[in-house]
Amino acid sequence: MAPPAQGEPRIVIIGCGFGGLEAARALKRAPVAITLVDRTNHHLFQPLLYQVATAGLSAPAIAAPVRHLFRGQPNVTTLLGEVTNIDAARREVVLADGSALPYDHLIVATGATHSYFGRDEWAHHAPGLKTLADAFEIRRRILLAFEAAEKEPDAAARAAWLTFVVIGGGPTGVEMAGTMAEIARHTLPGEFRRIDPASARILLLEGAPRLLQAMPPQLSRRAREQLEKLGVEVRLDTRVVAIDAAGVQVQSSGPQDASTESQQIPARCVIWAAGVAASPLGRQLAQATGAACDRAGRITVEPDLSVPGHPEISVIGDLADARSHVSGRPPRPVPGVSPAAKQMGRAAADNLLRRLASRPTRAFRYRDYGNLATIGRNAGVVDLTLPTGRHLKFSGYPAWLFWLFAHIYFLIGFRNRIVVLIDWASAYWSRRRYARVVAAGPDFD
Amino acid sequence: MAPPAQGEPRIVIIGCGFGGLEAARALKRAPVAITLVDRTNHHLFQPLLYQVATAGLSAPAIAAPVRHLFRGQPNVTTLLGEVTNIDAARREVVLADGSALPYDHLIVATGATHSYFGRDEWAHHAPGLKTLADAFEIRRRILLAFEAAEKEPDAAARAAWLTFVVIGGGPTGVEMAGTMAEIARHTLPGEFRRIDPASARILLLEGAPRLLQAMPPQLSRRAREQLEKLGVEVRLDTRVVAIDAAGVQVQSSGPQDASTESQQIPARCVIWAAGVAASPLGRQLAQATGAACDRAGRITVEPDLSVPGHPEISVIGDLADARSHVSGRPPRPVPGVSPAAKQMGRAAADNLLRRLASRPTRAFRYRDYGNLATIGRNAGVVDLTLPTGRHLKFSGYPAWLFWLFAHIYFLIGFRNRIVVLIDWASAYWSRRRYARVVAAGPDFD
Repeated sequence: MAPPAQGEPRIVIIGCGFGGLEAARALKRAPVAITLVDRTNHHLFQPLLYQVATAGLSAPAIAAPVRHLFRGQPNVTTLLGEVTNIDAARREVVLADGSALPYDHLIVATGATHSYFGRDEWAHHAPGLKTLADAFEIRRRILLAFEAAEKEPDAAARAAWLTFVVIGGGPTGVEMAGTMAEIARHTLPGEFRRIDPASARILLLEGAPRLLQAMPPQLSRRAREQLEKLGVEVRLDTRVVAIDAAGVQVQSSGPQDASTESQQIPARCVIWAAGVAASPLGRQLAQATGAACDRAGRITVEPDLSVPGHPEISVIGDLADARSHVSGRPPRPVPGVSPAAKQMGRAAADNLLRRLASRPTRAFRYRDYGNLATIGRNAGVVDLTLPTGRHLKFSGYPAWLFWLFAHIYFLIGFRNRIVVLIDWASAYWSRRRYARVVAAGPDFD
Repeated sequence: MAPPAQGEPRIVIIGCGFGGLEAARALKRAPVAITLVDRTNHHLFQPLLYQVATAGLSAPAIAAPVRHLFRGQPNVTTLLGEVTNIDAARREVVLADGSALPYDHLIVATGATHSYFGRDEWAHHAPGLKTLADAFEIRRRILLAFEAAEKEPDAAARAAWLTFVVIGGGPTGVEMAGTMAEIARHTLPGEFRRIDPASARILLLEGAPRLLQAMPPQLSRRAREQLEKLGVEVRLDTRVVAIDAAGVQVQSSGPQDASTESQQIPARCVIWAAGVAASPLGRQLAQATGAACDRAGRITVEPDLSVPGHPEISVIGDLADARSHVSGRPPRPVPGVSPAAKQMGRAAADNLLRRLASRPTRAFRYRDYGNLATIGRNAGVVDLTLPTGRHLKFSGYPAWLFWLFAHIYFLIGFRNRIVVLIDWASAYWSRRRYARVVAAGPDFD
């Protein structure tokens, strides 16, 4: 590839999740000047964030400083900053401090955030899990609920402190509910004098008729069985109609329960794992470029991941409403999972280099390796897509082991992998949870 | 010891630092009902807190859940709560939530906090280091100062972001300044594109004519030399007269500098390691019991560590203005260090058992093992008090090694020790710092 005529092309990448990180890495040897902007100072290994929220891992075990990751890649400048605006006409990214970053090519990879389906007032009572700050808040609520129960003289109030509700039966909800059951049944017993932590109720609410809808139905059933074995009350076909400081109000909608009367579940610790929406920058970018958004606020991109009419802008990862184009088959939606974000990051980088070399871009093709989820200790479900297109499904202990090693393998940075292994080995043998630390005081709102 | 006639004596211990923890442990086999109240859920290994503040260790590595530590001691009930008031007349401890804990015997071990010598408005600009929340805040300020410098186009403003001031030349100040110099000189270089982190200035300000005043003068000199070798600017005889968002105003007072004009040091990251005051509960207890307080707000206790006129209340650790009574010698003040707090915890527990058995109490006798401090990587000073009363002084690499192993040995919990060793071994060989993670966003006030 010939070097560009007047200085190096300026590439701005917004977001250092799996997509942005991979795009920047794929441009390692390219004669370009990359600016990588993120509003945190770390890349987060989000698949293990629920472990930080449930006190199994410390935050540094799953977070690596962005600029440390790129210390050996001189064409990357890392900036800590919040992007407020993309000026597509002037080809500038505007930061919260008012400064502007001009670009020749832009990759937008700001991911997703929680969606409360228009009920943002629920956020205060039912935090979601996307950032380290979220994980610390959830950890605080879980641990302090047991502390409050130990102090509570009133039986009904105590029961509300000991009722934990997880809303949403996707992978995060399943992992959170399973781990919380482990904590209540195996980690905490013996440490309290007035309450029995094992008597805590953990409820997992799902609006659809089954858990893990991205999985085959037989694995959904297995996941449910394994959760129930751990003591989690799984309620399917259950719609949340209200959340407040006192608890959650639900309505059954499925055939399993003919009544549609709503029921109040008194609970002081409620966790939101139900809705995901594209990061707000999506809508702004759509306005600035005239691109279409889907209902979740994701940008509908061209087959090569660029924004329609703006070949210089690519959108990847959870912010992209993308389709996988495999020749001979109708295009299929790309799921919002980390392998897809990484593959899109590589594809966007490759197409960027093609454009710089005045070669035609290529349509993105998603390679689906399958799905997996863990359920507490020793249990999980795995649905592997083999190169032949067939599926390999398994569950229980082998699935848990597979999940464990897959996640450790993909953790960024050798050092972190070792520490995570040690933390997990220790947690596994002792059933202790390493990171049961709440930095703040006893206040609980 | 005969069991008490009517139920077990109720012991309340306030605070689970080194003193409170040791007192509760020393009562392990006693037929008493202990309630241990702390406003955090963890015991903190405070001597290593500066490592959390400087991103070398994660918080869980130096913090252990209190109730986990006492899971095997059935006579201890752990409560998370903030004590607002001690009602010495009714023999009750009142918590922030309004509940009251009656006691037959009370051990107060709430420790110390920062003192800004009446200039509390400085706290916002120069945080101190006592809690995990403090450590996270300082870590955030240090790391984000380099990030802000990387973004700052103005040279003077950039220099202010790259000027770090540590106020106070005691062990914490020396350790903080040394580690910050390590970070600037060895950890961060190569990761920034617009600034050179190694050009950062680290200043250590001390009002007295020497550092580490608890140490012999020759070790103070060695500490200063080692800090200067690391690139720290040590300013002795330097009084801070103002701190605001722009920096620190100082006045030289010593013979080394005849001028007493004040000088302004522009700096955006200032750390307070200068003043310590007893926790506010001390003054309340003094009012409630008529006991005397010293200038730092510590309760002046009897030789057996009880409050004058209240043999049922003991005060230990940094909250106690205690004297060590060695027969044949005049009583000497007990220093505010963790070995002293632990010894007082054991002594208070022992005297409590003596009182329960109607035996005379014993005067507290402090066993001084010496002093040590570390200065970045490979350097430190050690002043050991041998059983013969003689002193063994050494510095440099052997002192650093001694410090390292002493601290790992005393870390609570086997698991933590291993993790800390691994973290340190990794940091030592790679000069990386494991925990360079800021959970919050890019805002910086």
